[in-house]
Amino acid sequence: MRTNTQVRLVRRPVGEPSRDDFEIASSPLSAPGPGQVLVKVLYVSLDPAMRGWMNEGRSYIEPVPLGEVMRALGAGRVVASGDPAFSVGDYVTGLTGVQEYALVEGHELTKVDPDLAPLPAFLHVLGMTGMTAYFGLLEVGRPKEGETVVVSAAAGAVGSVVGQIAKLKGCRVVGIAGGRKKCDYLVQELGFDAAVDYKQGNLKSALRAACPDGVDVFFDNVGGDILDTVLTRLRLHARVVICGAISQYNNTEPVKGPSNYLSLLVNRARMEGMVVFDYRDRFAQAVAEMAGWMAAGKLRHREHIVHGLETFPERLLMLFRGENFGKLVLAVARDD
Amino acid sequence: MRTNTQVRLVRRPVGEPSRDDFEIASSPLSAPGPGQVLVKVLYVSLDPAMRGWMNEGRSYIEPVPLGEVMRALGAGRVVASGDPAFSVGDYVTGLTGVQEYALVEGHELTKVDPDLAPLPAFLHVLGMTGMTAYFGLLEVGRPKEGETVVVSAAAGAVGSVVGQIAKLKGCRVVGIAGGRKKCDYLVQELGFDAAVDYKQGNLKSALRAACPDGVDVFFDNVGGDILDTVLTRLRLHARVVICGAISQYNNTEPVKGPSNYLSLLVNRARMEGMVVFDYRDRFAQAVAEMAGWMAAGKLRHREHIVHGLETFPERLLMLFRGENFGKLVLAVARDD
Repeated sequence: MRTNTQVRLVRRPVGEPSRDDFEIASSPLSAPGPGQVLVKVLYVSLDPAMRGWMNEGRSYIEPVPLGEVMRALGAGRVVASGDPAFSVGDYVTGLTGVQEYALVEGHELTKVDPDLAPLPAFLHVLGMTGMTAYFGLLEVGRPKEGETVVVSAAAGAVGSVVGQIAKLKGCRVVGIAGGRKKCDYLVQELGFDAAVDYKQGNLKSALRAACPDGVDVFFDNVGGDILDTVLTRLRLHARVVICGAISQYNNTEPVKGPSNYLSLLVNRARMEGMVVFDYRDRFAQAVAEMAGWMAAGKLRHREHIVHGLETFPERLLMLFRGENFGKLVLAVARDD
Repeated sequence: MRTNTQVRLVRRPVGEPSRDDFEIASSPLSAPGPGQVLVKVLYVSLDPAMRGWMNEGRSYIEPVPLGEVMRALGAGRVVASGDPAFSVGDYVTGLTGVQEYALVEGHELTKVDPDLAPLPAFLHVLGMTGMTAYFGLLEVGRPKEGETVVVSAAAGAVGSVVGQIAKLKGCRVVGIAGGRKKCDYLVQELGFDAAVDYKQGNLKSALRAACPDGVDVFFDNVGGDILDTVLTRLRLHARVVICGAISQYNNTEPVKGPSNYLSLLVNRARMEGMVVFDYRDRFAQAVAEMAGWMAAGKLRHREHIVHGLETFPERLLMLFRGENFGKLVLAVARDD
């Protein structure tokens, strides 16, 4: 009988999550019942949204119950199946949680084709972060050709895809990222028109220089001072997509609200939130379009792979410190 | 030769405007040139937006230049005309400024019919505040029958009209206002479903009681803590109309941004600013519809008339202290 090592949430973090908020424990594995699929987890996606799932209280999704395995998107291989739609050896993605093996209802899994792209890409550009970028930009931001699109955390998983899609749609694209290396990557490798290094200080004047005509669409993953500064540069009828606020997720004080929100009034602009799961019905179509762009060399992706289930608590913090470069993915096991 | 008494802005206020920010002075009156109209100002509209016009810097409209007459909407009677479209004796509204007589380009004036409603109503329900309520609610808030609409500063000029239009559209309407008298007025005279007195403290629980199913549309005139509290009660796909932020206009510190703006994300909700002048092309049609509702007894309005041009600096402050009850209008002269 196999055992299953799990990372469980045992305490609600205050501020930054720490190792003591989790326990790493083993439990016996059960065989899949009818309709269930047993997945060997190969990769787990590390996402800023996980921080919110650890909190008590109403949100767009239930909090992870204390004592339960930490919720996560994962990719893996089917090792036993009680659902005729899945066979042993199939590759799948879904909410596997942070554990070695996941017993999941078949209808909650998505089969993926590993010949199309390496498995971690299905947790990124062909997975939730790609879908977030695609629908957040196109459905909420609604950029028009020739408009200026600004994205924060631009070298991150969502931001890097947002910027590339905006370029494909004929926009002028400016990324905000931390550090010279990330900024160079945006301009030289992803084809952004400009990049602003928020760590250089004086974000406001750098943003003015990079967007002399103002900002039509701002796709925000960061919140805090970055959101507040971009608000001062909005053009008439601008759209601000609120996708996340990574600068605020570990706050022990109240979230810093955007002081400059009255720029929405002055500019008849709109700020709107988005949650990727709302577009579930259209994922397949979007994945096909994204895969086409990838195949044509028009959409690049970069994964930052770290190793070891037991390192989860520390690896997650990399996101909040800007230490990842590309989509952060935790490799859990070798595919053997 | 007549002289013209004017209230001029001579200093940019810091915090609350004070008498020393203005000078009251007389200048000789000129006769209207070709295309110009000389208006005897009878009423001047006192509006929260005026505070913004006194500040330096970019906004939706140029600041009032120092030394110039304070900008204001006014209503009056034509006393001399160089524009064949206007005759002596016509009643008009327009940007007259805070002065006894205004020399205005004819194409910037609107002729009004004093038999339709008393003249101050053309500065209110049939004027800018009515238009703001009409287009802000219907075009930006887009309420649907059966939805819950909340409005702040609900007994004020814009708020009282917003609530009544929302009732006409079949919504459940909740007003936020200061004091028992205003709250009673909303429910007993204007037909609001409920009113919340923010001065009673515990706005959050009062709002929860008044909106047990949450808020679909929030029309905000106030900002600050009221906006922040209503954000916690948004329903899925809610719309927040940012019309103003009277609680913040006299700040000497930065504006208080809405800490709870991530409720927009969780609820896939939208916050959008509006400026009434954008709907100028449709004013005539909206005025006709509003006049129809008034004639049918479905739309009530209340003006709070105060007297004397020279009292302008102090009267304006009534708005920021919640001392007005209905649309605040300064009577400048008798119609003789």
